Amino acid sequence: MSELTLYSYFRSSCSYRVRLALALKELPFATRAVHLLRNGGEQHAQDYQQHNPQALVPTLLDGQRTLTQSLAIIEYLDECHPEPPLLPGDARERAYVRALAQLLACDIQPLNNLRVLEWLKQDFGANQEQVSNWYQHWVTEGFEAFELLLESHYLAGNCCYGDSPTLADICLIPQVYNALRFDCDLATTPRLFDIYQYCVTLPAFKAAAPENQPDAES
Amino acid sequence: MSELTLYSYFRSSCSYRVRLALALKELPFATRAVHLLRNGGEQHAQDYQQHNPQALVPTLLDGQRTLTQSLAIIEYLDECHPEPPLLPGDARERAYVRALAQLLACDIQPLNNLRVLEWLKQDFGANQEQVSNWYQHWVTEGFEAFELLLESHYLAGNCCYGDSPTLADICLIPQVYNALRFDCDLATTPRLFDIYQYCVTLPAFKAAAPENQPDAES
Repeated sequence: MSELTLYSYFRSSCSYRVRLALALKELPFATRAVHLLRNGGEQHAQDYQQHNPQALVPTLLDGQRTLTQSLAIIEYLDECHPEPPLLPGDARERAYVRALAQLLACDIQPLNNLRVLEWLKQDFGANQEQVSNWYQHWVTEGFEAFELLLESHYLAGNCCYGDSPTLADICLIPQVYNALRFDCDLATTPRLFDIYQYCVTLPAFKAAAPENQPDAES
Repeated sequence: MSELTLYSYFRSSCSYRVRLALALKELPFATRAVHLLRNGGEQHAQDYQQHNPQALVPTLLDGQRTLTQSLAIIEYLDECHPEPPLLPGDARERAYVRALAQLLACDIQPLNNLRVLEWLKQDFGANQEQVSNWYQHWVTEGFEAFELLLESHYLAGNCCYGDSPTLADICLIPQVYNALRFDCDLATTPRLFDIYQYCVTLPAFKAAAPENQPDAES
């Protein structure tokens, strides 16, 4: 197995997702911290952009190979290191788990990441309250749909799909972590919140948590 | 094979992606039009939300099975109907093609879809010029990174990956189609634009184009 290096920022939810996949599969890796705020954002450094032209984290180096986009990285890890599986074995069930993950990864997270919130402030002159409303709106709308999907599926358990973490939990837990930081009300999505509370007790989720990273700040 | 029904809006780029996958695989399907503007948005109708609690298009029914999220649907179709393949056979190459697709599907499209542009106008009082700036900014930034990824890969050809369409082209062509509607300047991304011009000449891309749908409007 070649050496794995993860370019990561402790609070980035997309970095957190990849850390979760690595931890669940017990794959050792080196962290290279990319501070998204310091020095105008270290993700904009030319050295980093040679790995990731989008100037976003995470990036995973697998030996000489550079991988970007958190969901693509996680499916790659799942294909190369199949145990424990992060997707169900059946195509229809796999589509369901991927849809849960994409609801979070396509329809919530991109609207609420740092570069977007900065644009709202700078170009639209949004104040803190307006930014919070924006943030909370997309979280609540997405989480309520997520909750309905969980309710409609026979296999919702301690985790989104049964009792073992999948790609859906890997996306959910970082999103809930951030939602709590932004004071989102999770009262309307109790099942989703139960899954969060269960998952964060698991060793892999503790290892991958923002506060336990080498670049964590208080 | 069970019957396929696609809930779709002709101009929705996520619907367009699924239509492309269906056309490339020559799978017959029935279209159920969901007009995103008429009657306050038909995607909000209770009947539709029973299929798709996010009130977004597309939704694919495969017999009794409901599938949501365009990328999850396309991977499902690719797994159930492997020819022609929409992803490379090698895990590393698959991760590359998925990353290209996700750059578009996670980092451009969600920022520019209808519900977001409406919010900018209503909550931030954005005028048409500000909305266009927003739209063009995320397209240009994303497309320029996409172009660099294409340039760095040995297999860029008539399509994003070699000479046959993959998931990357399925996401790219609808995004370029919309970028042209919003007057985005594609001069800085000539390779990407060449791929667009090549793909739209292919029969499957013609069949899936917005103007050739039963619900098309001029």
